[in-house]
Amino acid sequence: MSATGYDHPFIKTLLMFIRAHDSSGAWETMPDEAIMAPFIMTKAQRREIPLFGDPDPDILWRLDQYFNAIAMAVENRSGVAVAPIMKIHHEGWGRMLLTAGKLVAVNNYVRELHRWSFDSVEDMITKAEKIIEEGVATIAKFPEVAAA
Amino acid sequence: MSATGYDHPFIKTLLMFIRAHDSSGAWETMPDEAIMAPFIMTKAQRREIPLFGDPDPDILWRLDQYFNAIAMAVENRSGVAVAPIMKIHHEGWGRMLLTAGKLVAVNNYVRELHRWSFDSVEDMITKAEKIIEEGVATIAKFPEVAAA
Repeated sequence: MSATGYDHPFIKTLLMFIRAHDSSGAWETMPDEAIMAPFIMTKAQRREIPLFGDPDPDILWRLDQYFNAIAMAVENRSGVAVAPIMKIHHEGWGRMLLTAGKLVAVNNYVRELHRWSFDSVEDMITKAEKIIEEGVATIAKFPEVAAA
Repeated sequence: MSATGYDHPFIKTLLMFIRAHDSSGAWETMPDEAIMAPFIMTKAQRREIPLFGDPDPDILWRLDQYFNAIAMAVENRSGVAVAPIMKIHHEGWGRMLLTAGKLVAVNNYVRELHRWSFDSVEDMITKAEKIIEEGVATIAKFPEVAAA
């Protein structure tokens, strides 16, 4: 019964964040599928991207939007204010944290960001949900730290 | 009875971190005072630095060393492994966190980094000690989160 694909609340939030950066007005009428297309790659497409040099800055920008959407989902479900902090080395690896009060709700390491993408929208939802659930569960486990 | 100035353990750690980046061998024999000099400014010197544009990258590098020395002090005194994460906007403001397990031991905001400096070595020690003590106290308050 849960929403899937472009109707899923996570994807809706992500689309909202992306469209909030629209400076030309073009993204407003662009279909969701077209906005999401750069996030989706086949395994073969991914392998074609070399891992040397710096990742495409657009990838890092998309990662930012993705992580902001995760932060908002954790905030909505836990009812606790959450702050994202990302530190990405220019060569394409780094650390992403979600903090709530004095709690680290999510602590994720990323690497090979040159190829950062998902097999499908459903694949993205599955992976994002895993992080969101981890964050919500950590806040539920240490509520007094999240409120500190 | 506590150590002051260049004999203070915090300053010794900071000097160690800085000298670890020595690529020419020149810093090894350079007096501590000369190594520390760029960290120290008078109020008048500070005011002369404009707040527009990006801060001098050397300042951000020094901030990194300072924060690493704080992380090491918190780790030594608490006995808990600590990880620093800093996210600095290129215009000279940002956030510095020390995490221990799932705990945010230190959460500091910095701004106007163009002028980041201290009145004296003693001033630096006082300010660093305040952050270190806050971190150690937070870990002591939530030991099970720091170990999570």
